[in-house]
Amino acid sequence: MINPETNQDTSLIHRAAEYTPPRSIRHLLVGRPLQTADAPHETIGKAVGLAVFASDALSSNAYATQEILVILAAAGTVAFGYVFPISIVIVVLLAIVVISYEQIIHAYPNGGGAYIVAYDNFGRFPALMAGAALLTDYILTVSVSVSSGVAQIISAYPQLFEYRVAISVACVAFITLVNLRGVRESGIAFAIPSYFFIFIMFLTISTGLFRTFTGDLARVVNPPPIEHFGEAIPTVTTFLLLHAFSSGTAALTGVEAISNGITAFKEPRSRNAAITLIWMAFILAFLFLGISFLAREIQAVPSEAETVISQLARTVFGGQGVLYLLVIIATTVILILAANTAFAGFPRLGAMLASDGFLPRQLTFRGSRLVYSYGIVSLGALASILIIVFQASVTRLIPLYAIGVFLSFTLAQSGMARRWWRSGRLKGQPQQSSTSMLHYDPRWAIKMISNGVGALCTGIVMFVFAITKFRDGAWIVLILTPLLIGMFLWIKRHYSLLASRLSLENYGEPPPYDTRHRVIVPISNVHQGTLAALRYARMLSDDVTAVHISMEPDDTEKVRKKWETWGRGTRLVIVDSPYRLFLEPLLDYIKDILSVRQPNETITIVVPHFVPEHKIHNALHMQTAEMLRRELLSTPGVVITEVPYQVP
Amino acid sequence: MINPETNQDTSLIHRAAEYTPPRSIRHLLVGRPLQTADAPHETIGKAVGLAVFASDALSSNAYATQEILVILAAAGTVAFGYVFPISIVIVVLLAIVVISYEQIIHAYPNGGGAYIVAYDNFGRFPALMAGAALLTDYILTVSVSVSSGVAQIISAYPQLFEYRVAISVACVAFITLVNLRGVRESGIAFAIPSYFFIFIMFLTISTGLFRTFTGDLARVVNPPPIEHFGEAIPTVTTFLLLHAFSSGTAALTGVEAISNGITAFKEPRSRNAAITLIWMAFILAFLFLGISFLAREIQAVPSEAETVISQLARTVFGGQGVLYLLVIIATTVILILAANTAFAGFPRLGAMLASDGFLPRQLTFRGSRLVYSYGIVSLGALASILIIVFQASVTRLIPLYAIGVFLSFTLAQSGMARRWWRSGRLKGQPQQSSTSMLHYDPRWAIKMISNGVGALCTGIVMFVFAITKFRDGAWIVLILTPLLIGMFLWIKRHYSLLASRLSLENYGEPPPYDTRHRVIVPISNVHQGTLAALRYARMLSDDVTAVHISMEPDDTEKVRKKWETWGRGTRLVIVDSPYRLFLEPLLDYIKDILSVRQPNETITIVVPHFVPEHKIHNALHMQTAEMLRRELLSTPGVVITEVPYQVP
Repeated sequence: MINPETNQDTSLIHRAAEYTPPRSIRHLLVGRPLQTADAPHETIGKAVGLAVFASDALSSNAYATQEILVILAAAGTVAFGYVFPISIVIVVLLAIVVISYEQIIHAYPNGGGAYIVAYDNFGRFPALMAGAALLTDYILTVSVSVSSGVAQIISAYPQLFEYRVAISVACVAFITLVNLRGVRESGIAFAIPSYFFIFIMFLTISTGLFRTFTGDLARVVNPPPIEHFGEAIPTVTTFLLLHAFSSGTAALTGVEAISNGITAFKEPRSRNAAITLIWMAFILAFLFLGISFLAREIQAVPSEAETVISQLARTVFGGQGVLYLLVIIATTVILILAANTAFAGFPRLGAMLASDGFLPRQLTFRGSRLVYSYGIVSLGALASILIIVFQASVTRLIPLYAIGVFLSFTLAQSGMARRWWRSGRLKGQPQQSSTSMLHYDPRWAIKMISNGVGALCTGIVMFVFAITKFRDGAWIVLILTPLLIGMFLWIKRHYSLLASRLSLENYGEPPPYDTRHRVIVPISNVHQGTLAALRYARMLSDDVTAVHISMEPDDTEKVRKKWETWGRGTRLVIVDSPYRLFLEPLLDYIKDILSVRQPNETITIVVPHFVPEHKIHNALHMQTAEMLRRELLSTPGVVITEVPYQVP
Repeated sequence: MINPETNQDTSLIHRAAEYTPPRSIRHLLVGRPLQTADAPHETIGKAVGLAVFASDALSSNAYATQEILVILAAAGTVAFGYVFPISIVIVVLLAIVVISYEQIIHAYPNGGGAYIVAYDNFGRFPALMAGAALLTDYILTVSVSVSSGVAQIISAYPQLFEYRVAISVACVAFITLVNLRGVRESGIAFAIPSYFFIFIMFLTISTGLFRTFTGDLARVVNPPPIEHFGEAIPTVTTFLLLHAFSSGTAALTGVEAISNGITAFKEPRSRNAAITLIWMAFILAFLFLGISFLAREIQAVPSEAETVISQLARTVFGGQGVLYLLVIIATTVILILAANTAFAGFPRLGAMLASDGFLPRQLTFRGSRLVYSYGIVSLGALASILIIVFQASVTRLIPLYAIGVFLSFTLAQSGMARRWWRSGRLKGQPQQSSTSMLHYDPRWAIKMISNGVGALCTGIVMFVFAITKFRDGAWIVLILTPLLIGMFLWIKRHYSLLASRLSLENYGEPPPYDTRHRVIVPISNVHQGTLAALRYARMLSDDVTAVHISMEPDDTEKVRKKWETWGRGTRLVIVDSPYRLFLEPLLDYIKDILSVRQPNETITIVVPHFVPEHKIHNALHMQTAEMLRRELLSTPGVVITEVPYQVP
């Protein structure tokens, strides 16, 4: 057979039909928006895109204002007035970050997460920093969002307060299960709750503003007990303001989601994604400023017992009526959705790191249900542990959260700045087409400045964050990130070493095929399963020996009798084991045989293996093959084979 | 070859040399006293036997008196006076139980635990009740002994109080590790601490008694805060006394140990064991009465902060000097030893239940280090859970403890009563030699009455216990025991069903050997490991197909090129998988082949498997064989073989 491509005889090599996943898996690709990159013919428009990618960013409104207040509370209620100015500074920061990401979207139309941008412009180490930061943040997104969602529920039903940790863990377990079982959401499943949240929050804020300007809006009735974080201080200090600002930057988390998922958009995708990003930024800014402004007006207080959102809703709508409940429900649902997006992003990033050799290779098979499950279960487990350790307190989780986000912002934007610098140096050179499509851009200087300012601002925020929140828990992240990077490098090293050792470069002539083959069948009894194993063994080789470890003379006598009938001429060796040991004498026998084997002789141990109807019954049977494998794994030339016997 | 025994030609069947465990395992048998039954030539005398078997029983002195006081405290300190009369009643009960066990020792010279005696005389169900009760009690022995041991340490070092749970769990972990790692104790390792405990307690009690009668013994100086259990009541009620009595019966736990281990004694072993039992009973009675008497004299109070033993020692020796510390150390050590004996008894009982088919069969290989480990780890884990749940409080653990002990006492003794009754009916019949050696005993009536009284008393105690302690936690045991019995029966049912299904009774003629054999080798790359798997596959059959799942066209091109060089004529099929799935297309291909296979065709899937230098690297490789096995286990005629390739 002549291969038309290579014009070579390759009759040995056949190409089978392309594998198309059945409906259920195709559906997965449609439903899981962040994976639609794999199937570019299924794209979404701006309206759905906003719903899909904005849940993470918008949901941070549920806690950002409150976290500013918690810190300010250390200086007494008088400090609460600073919440609005701080929020304005954060919105300015948001604008800077969004302008930077808008440039990333145009420069990386195939998706430009911090990991890719850092790798492309700085190389391995900064990319791994971004990777570590992002992985940590996916976990924290789940913990923080779910804890905040449960805090909303508790605001409406205070009697649930003492069960908050249990409810939060149950929520994470539920999201994990949904993701494992494969109930897939379509764009519409995101669109309804996202737009409903936007609508109800607009309604709340508009009503609140209207009532403020008509002088009709009162203070919070029966405010919950004020909670503050850290020691009380007599006066408002710069440190306190910076500290509060750091907490408020949680509002920016999730802004990068669109730049990761550009390929999900309809063409012209960069343009559509950029427009969606700007919409999202305006909505986010309006909601955040509105909530902060009104929180000050109604003199909302930070509390574990009732969220600021709840205080706001019941004050604006004058009681805990239907509208109040709708605000609580919408907020909870969008927080749960935000947690859910992390379950798509985590395995996706894992696959990127894995295909570069920094995480176990098997994670690259990202569609594979089995492998995918590991990622989902680990994410759920780690998020649950954080929730338990930090008692489902958003305030205690926040110090761990935003530092990673800002590290990745800084890396992405300084990467972009470097990119524009390099682009500027290409002036006059012919346009080249590389994977990152770097070419001369006449506006390189302004773009470099814009990304540079972004990098500088986010970098400063990161340092402010690390310093002000060091003792609150940021130190954990500062320890964890280098550890993760170390792990990535360790894994990479293992793969490189292994590849060089397995290489066929200097392998020479392989050993011949015609080797001797000896087969050993350990049997404890003679029954249908034994005979199936024996039949298989006889197919492999003519040199078959059955071995019986004799612990009870009576049993052995039965085996001996049955063998005369059913052994069909196969040699049986009986090893007496008066000490009632099983594995040890068997290994001893095998090692005796190994000690006299000839060169090029392979020994296969064929073990009968029941397949019981129910998996739980496995615990009732010796996993002989498993035990032998553990003992003999490092012995060359020994293969252990289980012959499954399905009990009829 | 002619077998001299059967005078039959059995040249097919060879008997290999008996397996003698190497020195390390022999040492295990010597060192682990409760296992010496397996090696009857290594026996112990009465003095060592007392040390070995008495630690469990004697150690209960560390808490029995205190547990009586805790209950009495509900009626105020005036009720403490009842501690001595209650102790006398308990010692009478001890006498009755010991007389009963003395008869068991003579009737069952091969070891007569409650399980064996109940099985022999009543049959399956009562035996399982005893089995369930004993397993629970082994776990509780560990929890209670360790918690009490830690309570002694805390008495001397009160600043450790808040770490008591952590210290207790660490102790259990330590004992578990010691048992896992195989640091084996000889008889002497038991003898020193046991006799030291007996000596130091004799010294304490004698000094105390002497000082009492010289009118020199004062009350406890600075007694700790009194702790009581349950609601305070105005006066001493019968219920309270029975409740206190129930708690005090904890003193009897461990008395049955000698009857389980008779075979460890030198001949005449029944006589030696019986004498040892009686010695032990006298020592136990003296220590218990002495402690209870002196506790009343010095007006010791029950407390979590300081044990009664500690109060006694510092009062008798006038301060926390060297003698005081020696008492604390001796008590702690004997409690730890008592916990350690459970680690030998638990797997031993498990083996008995397993060989009757009520627990997983693999537990019968009791010498096997691997299997043995499961039992040790489960025991350690369960005991730790109890310690955590009950906050290392002996008082809260005790209600779960003694009910099982008394259930097994009752079953063993009523079994013996029934045995004497049957023995009496054999009068005049020829003596028969069965396994249990039941024959006419002229003194059957008196023996029956003695065991009957024992059964009645322990039965009544059990009911008193269940009623007075129901709400304190005994209900847990009353639920757990039937669940355990249900599990035993469920396991038995599985084995019986399986045996009948696998039976060769009506199997007819087995299928012929000469079946077709098709081999599939999934490869992701071409390297030395792939070639090893291919070599093995070619040895199994001539019909070998390699399959490559193509996820990256570039990689596939490399595979194709290498295959032309290294494939040596073996067919390669390439399956394109644009969705980056791996397992699904492979399974799909295998199922295609299965759908066209011929009758009697077996399909073997040979998977290359790296054996990395360090086990941890396994996580970095696809466990392809494991995944295929999981998916194809229930498909008849498919065998999955891993060919290990040791990376050089």
